[in-house]
Amino acid sequence: MLLNKRRTYEIMEEQHLEALIATTPENVYYTSQSWSPTHWSLRHDVQVYVVLFKDEAIAPVLIMPLGNVGLAIDALAEGYELIPYGTFHIVTTGTKLEGWSERIRKIIEDPCQPDPIDTLVKVLNERGLVRGTIGIDERNLTDDHLNRLRNSLDKVELKPAYALLKRIRQVKTDEEIKRIRRSIGVIEAAVAHSLAAARVGVTEAQLARELEKAVVAGGARPLFTVIAGGQNSAYPASHPSDRKLEKGDILRFDVGCRYEHYCSDIARTAILGEPAEKQRSYYMAILEGEQRALRELAPGVPVKHIFEVAVKAVRQAGIPHYKRNHCGHGIGLDLYETLLVAPNDATVLEEGMVVNIETPYYELGFGGLQVEDTALITADGYTCLTTIERDLRSVPV
Amino acid sequence: MLLNKRRTYEIMEEQHLEALIATTPENVYYTSQSWSPTHWSLRHDVQVYVVLFKDEAIAPVLIMPLGNVGLAIDALAEGYELIPYGTFHIVTTGTKLEGWSERIRKIIEDPCQPDPIDTLVKVLNERGLVRGTIGIDERNLTDDHLNRLRNSLDKVELKPAYALLKRIRQVKTDEEIKRIRRSIGVIEAAVAHSLAAARVGVTEAQLARELEKAVVAGGARPLFTVIAGGQNSAYPASHPSDRKLEKGDILRFDVGCRYEHYCSDIARTAILGEPAEKQRSYYMAILEGEQRALRELAPGVPVKHIFEVAVKAVRQAGIPHYKRNHCGHGIGLDLYETLLVAPNDATVLEEGMVVNIETPYYELGFGGLQVEDTALITADGYTCLTTIERDLRSVPV
Repeated sequence: MLLNKRRTYEIMEEQHLEALIATTPENVYYTSQSWSPTHWSLRHDVQVYVVLFKDEAIAPVLIMPLGNVGLAIDALAEGYELIPYGTFHIVTTGTKLEGWSERIRKIIEDPCQPDPIDTLVKVLNERGLVRGTIGIDERNLTDDHLNRLRNSLDKVELKPAYALLKRIRQVKTDEEIKRIRRSIGVIEAAVAHSLAAARVGVTEAQLARELEKAVVAGGARPLFTVIAGGQNSAYPASHPSDRKLEKGDILRFDVGCRYEHYCSDIARTAILGEPAEKQRSYYMAILEGEQRALRELAPGVPVKHIFEVAVKAVRQAGIPHYKRNHCGHGIGLDLYETLLVAPNDATVLEEGMVVNIETPYYELGFGGLQVEDTALITADGYTCLTTIERDLRSVPV
Repeated sequence: MLLNKRRTYEIMEEQHLEALIATTPENVYYTSQSWSPTHWSLRHDVQVYVVLFKDEAIAPVLIMPLGNVGLAIDALAEGYELIPYGTFHIVTTGTKLEGWSERIRKIIEDPCQPDPIDTLVKVLNERGLVRGTIGIDERNLTDDHLNRLRNSLDKVELKPAYALLKRIRQVKTDEEIKRIRRSIGVIEAAVAHSLAAARVGVTEAQLARELEKAVVAGGARPLFTVIAGGQNSAYPASHPSDRKLEKGDILRFDVGCRYEHYCSDIARTAILGEPAEKQRSYYMAILEGEQRALRELAPGVPVKHIFEVAVKAVRQAGIPHYKRNHCGHGIGLDLYETLLVAPNDATVLEEGMVVNIETPYYELGFGGLQVEDTALITADGYTCLTTIERDLRSVPV
């Protein structure tokens, strides 16, 4: 199961919530395992809700457009009730079918309400949720949706819950960790494949294509592909260009993919030929900062401490003017999950959190150097989920 | 240029807007050609704005995080002013650099405000936008952002403008049409490549991987991949499964990719072996409906008329019980652009609109049949942008 049930119920208790409603594609998928491609691409224009109740005796409910039901049935977490809305014309002949087709036939043949908000109100009413506080993920609702809900639930206090759901998602379940590991496995193989194609005269765009081919061949989807050479490597979110690699160039990879919807994000740096002294010594400094930060990871440690260790170590190791806004972030279903390794983030690490650590250095005219890894916080420290070597690579020229 | 300037100014005039502000990644990209990967993946958590002024003498402004500036400079539409906010540590040594690096150096070395909303207010104030009505794309702002804007602009009326921007986007520019054509070219080649791999014993997931490999090899990114065989083909948004294809199966493709951010969406149907009589005759009926609908496309025609023609033709041609909610949709930067070929959509076709036409048929226990094509509305009718044959395919067994 993707959902961290224990943490969900603890946080609902802490916030005095009678129910918690997910509306964004990410939170709907996380709470129900039901994935709707139209919801992900059309967002506000497709309304899907998952309702979790404080009373665990009440089955969680997934409310979705009738046309998406086929897909949901297969993946929906056990014990959930599926309530469709709207009309969609799938012909059923009344004859008994096999497996899911029979479950879907019953759902399709049952009459349903035309509107998602009316359906949600009915679900809450029928389960006695007529007063108290309900947390609702506000991000995928329009003002019109929210106003209609408020008017229909006049004794209920609706509290925005997008941030709360993201807080629940901070501590990963085994299934999530498995998927993150596999996402990392795919991107690591893709980095190796793309690096193997690097040589003088090849363009950033060609290397990006090689990387993305390997991502797809690994059963994942490209998420972001920053492959930047020479001066371009100084721009953090550079788009792979048609610039040809030259001898002496820095080649910076900051790349990620999605595997079964879970993200990976890794950075590595290579030099075309033998590294120049500044390239080598600055890289050693950022690597030192990253490794020192990694070694501090453990339950109970505030993330701002990790940040301080990273920046201080890079400065001491050879870049005295080093500055950063953050040295890492949470990762999971989103590329940036809640938690920034930064001075103003109050998060204290817990077992099960998954954190990226990075110490990039950008200098116009010189280029950018970067190393980034993903770690799982364990009971007594951390395990690094990324596995490929972190040294500055040298591409033979 | 992606932006349809003429239509933008006409609609601003019609709505009495002094300025129009884009905030969602799609609308920001459309109005400025500046693409930020973090904005696209983090949405509300990254604030980027494009401000267009009714007074064409005032240069449009792009407001974005300082860390994204490098990427923006390259692609930003001519004549736009770039105003960054926030802090991001890119080292500059003060030495003069070449090309964009020099432009970026100047931007980075200029002091900027920490906050996006403060920056937006300052931009509006400095340009005299202190009263009147301003349209603002409300979809990527939180309540907090909107309240702060309202408080700082107390003589300005802020009107939600997400729908207005999507209305502007209905009529495509030449650059958009070029990209849609190329996106279609990639997906068509990928369908051919995947179909060539279809045979008894191959799984839906294997064919999906072949399709996505060809998409990436074509320089595009997978967007959605519905490849469904046998009974699974009856579910509109089916996820490719490990079910092996069998002789006599329907094999339904409903697939799309993004090429330079523009979407394609095409559907084709094949049978493993010789089509059974019902498969053949039903497919002929939906194809007849789709082709009749296509032939009606022309400026001045209401989309609901297209819908009626499609449904009526399918019924007359062999599926008397045929029903649909819609028989197509706009396409472009979003998979579904504003315009639904449906009875309750009031849109009247205009030259430059790009429309998908489809007449899928879904029957549980039998399967799903689908044909879908993309057409550009021209001065005297339409041009079909999809090019591969529409007949029911037969995969040799």
